[in-house]
Amino acid sequence: MGYQVVAAQLARLSGALGTSDHASVVSITLFVALLCACIVLGHLLEENRWLNESITALIIGLCTGVVILMTTKGKSSHVLVFSEDLFFIYLLPPIIFNAGFQVKKKQFFRNFMTITLFGAVGTMMSFFTISLAAIAIFSRMNIGTLDVSDFLAIGAIFSATDSVCTLQVLNQDETPFLYSLVFGEGVVNDATSVVLFNALQNFDPNQIDAIVILKFLGNFCYLFVSSTFLGVFTGLLSAYVIKKLYIGRHSTDREVALVMLMAYLSYMLAELLDLSGILTVFFCGIVMSHYTWHNVTESSRVTTKHAFATLSFIAETFLFLYVGMDALDIEKWKFASDSPGKSIGISSILLGLVLVGRAAFVFPLSFLSNLTKKTELEKISWRQQIVIWWAGLMRGAVSIALAYNKFTRSGHTQLHGNAIMITSTITVVLFSTMVSHLMLQSLSNAVYQLIT
Amino acid sequence: MGYQVVAAQLARLSGALGTSDHASVVSITLFVALLCACIVLGHLLEENRWLNESITALIIGLCTGVVILMTTKGKSSHVLVFSEDLFFIYLLPPIIFNAGFQVKKKQFFRNFMTITLFGAVGTMMSFFTISLAAIAIFSRMNIGTLDVSDFLAIGAIFSATDSVCTLQVLNQDETPFLYSLVFGEGVVNDATSVVLFNALQNFDPNQIDAIVILKFLGNFCYLFVSSTFLGVFTGLLSAYVIKKLYIGRHSTDREVALVMLMAYLSYMLAELLDLSGILTVFFCGIVMSHYTWHNVTESSRVTTKHAFATLSFIAETFLFLYVGMDALDIEKWKFASDSPGKSIGISSILLGLVLVGRAAFVFPLSFLSNLTKKTELEKISWRQQIVIWWAGLMRGAVSIALAYNKFTRSGHTQLHGNAIMITSTITVVLFSTMVSHLMLQSLSNAVYQLIT
Repeated sequence: MGYQVVAAQLARLSGALGTSDHASVVSITLFVALLCACIVLGHLLEENRWLNESITALIIGLCTGVVILMTTKGKSSHVLVFSEDLFFIYLLPPIIFNAGFQVKKKQFFRNFMTITLFGAVGTMMSFFTISLAAIAIFSRMNIGTLDVSDFLAIGAIFSATDSVCTLQVLNQDETPFLYSLVFGEGVVNDATSVVLFNALQNFDPNQIDAIVILKFLGNFCYLFVSSTFLGVFTGLLSAYVIKKLYIGRHSTDREVALVMLMAYLSYMLAELLDLSGILTVFFCGIVMSHYTWHNVTESSRVTTKHAFATLSFIAETFLFLYVGMDALDIEKWKFASDSPGKSIGISSILLGLVLVGRAAFVFPLSFLSNLTKKTELEKISWRQQIVIWWAGLMRGAVSIALAYNKFTRSGHTQLHGNAIMITSTITVVLFSTMVSHLMLQSLSNAVYQLIT
Repeated sequence: MGYQVVAAQLARLSGALGTSDHASVVSITLFVALLCACIVLGHLLEENRWLNESITALIIGLCTGVVILMTTKGKSSHVLVFSEDLFFIYLLPPIIFNAGFQVKKKQFFRNFMTITLFGAVGTMMSFFTISLAAIAIFSRMNIGTLDVSDFLAIGAIFSATDSVCTLQVLNQDETPFLYSLVFGEGVVNDATSVVLFNALQNFDPNQIDAIVILKFLGNFCYLFVSSTFLGVFTGLLSAYVIKKLYIGRHSTDREVALVMLMAYLSYMLAELLDLSGILTVFFCGIVMSHYTWHNVTESSRVTTKHAFATLSFIAETFLFLYVGMDALDIEKWKFASDSPGKSIGISSILLGLVLVGRAAFVFPLSFLSNLTKKTELEKISWRQQIVIWWAGLMRGAVSIALAYNKFTRSGHTQLHGNAIMITSTITVVLFSTMVSHLMLQSLSNAVYQLIT
């Protein structure tokens, strides 16, 4: 008996071990080389106001996808399969942590109420608008057998704004108010849409009553408060440990390592406890930049500041490269190419819904928020409202991750509808990122000149 | 047809995607938490001369292994399977790069000939000694059906010293000569043993003639020269790009990102071209610290120096934690516990062979090297020879990776012999790391006092 167990174990091991898998070496080398190219090209194109690293990475990713598609004779356009794990475990934490670490805290806390209002209530309003409109429009079109829970998922998927992309577009130093509002909203929005999406997974549309809604709201508040608490607690703990033990006395490296590891630990703990890791690591970043950062040695301060920004920068560039390359995956487009008209129609409708869904809360909530403000200066001006509306139109990796989660798992009987939803999501993401980025750049340039 | 292809594709995708795999979240959280514990404990135990982070990590790993073993009721002691990929793709590059980046270049190049002599010729001598002795001794014991090629592999596995551990034991500032010699030897040794091991994989012991040996030597020289060249070239390229494009003008982060990515790229390219990534990234580190580092902005200089050291520190600690946890994997010990006497015997014999194999080249080669030196000061003293001999006794993750590669793959018919070789390797690694670390600490303390 023992022999068989060991034989099975060894077989498993030998499969898992192998010599370094050649394919993974190839894909890692390719990605690292492309990342270098993105940095160099992004630097060379810096003077060009229409492009930045993200768009460069997206375009390089698309081009690489085309090259791979041609060399593999149309079999595949990507070297890595899009993996939620890669995104949620490795790429997202450094980006959001760094955003918290570098955010202008004064602005952020001054606008805390507005940010929460936009991020939580606004996302809900956008979710209802998109879901209801999707039910009304799509159920009349003949696209597979999508049911109500699918339409609700679509509402959640397309309510998730891309906070990473927003960071690239607005400038913290030039427009601190808009930046903190839009970015803060993005973080809360991420949390809200993930909560919404998870709540919808085990949701029966025939059983909506007050208790279900109350339960949902309670769950959301619990999540919000406990995630924030966990982040703040980990941040304070790191500050205490580093000050009390004076770890930098012997080695800067240990100090930096501890700060990095504890920040990451906060995210992973939150994920483990089914909280929102994004919220946790964001608040952990804020607390660490406010307390821990002042307890470390001078060289640790320089190192952490730049190392976190670098990691976040690499993760962002990687993400856009990846989305660009993955977008061309040929299998996904089989259905779309069978009925191109319908595909374009659905993508356009979704884009329209995103526009409407966002307008449906930005303008009313700005109006509400303005009612509570006394001076004219504190109010959100009409022009600022337009920038907020526009800046939050981008849909990014969170939407893609949620769409994959929903439409590649929920049974293969509804293949037609599922495939079309995946391709439409990719279309909306690519289109909204590229177009709204470009338009926002010129729009906000104009707005900057008007406000300043 | 299209439907079926897509269905298969989607099934594959949904398997690969899933929601973040709960098990992987648990294991990552556990590892990050343990890493934090290692840093804090290592800091607290700093005054204790018998312990350092590596040994602390090894012990914490073993303890965690015991706890997991008990909570899973003896089923498993590890949360991650030892993977060569993890080791060779993620953990080793930052450690070796940082070693090259921080090495005292003057000392290193002054002793270049001696280092190459010890690393290349010495490793070969050690390999022959251990292989021949293993053939002579083990073939008379009844341990499975190990054949000549297995014994040759044992020679290669136990000739690979642990350069990571060596770094921890010798102090670059106190004994620069010994440090550069032992560490430099370790890097060349790594390359030599990996080349040896790979050459042995498709080696027919019945066909040894002059041509085979010449071919092997030619292959080794090609590998050595081209790996070094690739590393130097990538290093110089990074210096040129950063100076020419003045990337630090706008952003320190891009500069740091480019340095990191190009260093990693050199390693991955070497692996892709079947060269020695270890040699490449080591020389890349040397060139980058000599040229690139002087072209970047002041804050990039502080950041790269500490960020690389931090990454290397985390990778090292992770490695020891991992080896500690993996060592207790219950499946491996089934055979060892069936015949404990034989297991202990074999491990002791291997330890003895390691001692003899190292002595067989350190003392003769030191003698040879001394013949070429004119002044008494340049010669390797008797005491230094003992430290070199002892410092290179540690066997580490490279040995484990090679042993897994050889003995969990080469057919399951020879299970008994294979299992015993795996457990013996782990025993030798644990024993040599812990004991020789402790002895070297006291030994070298004594030697420092005598030399200085």
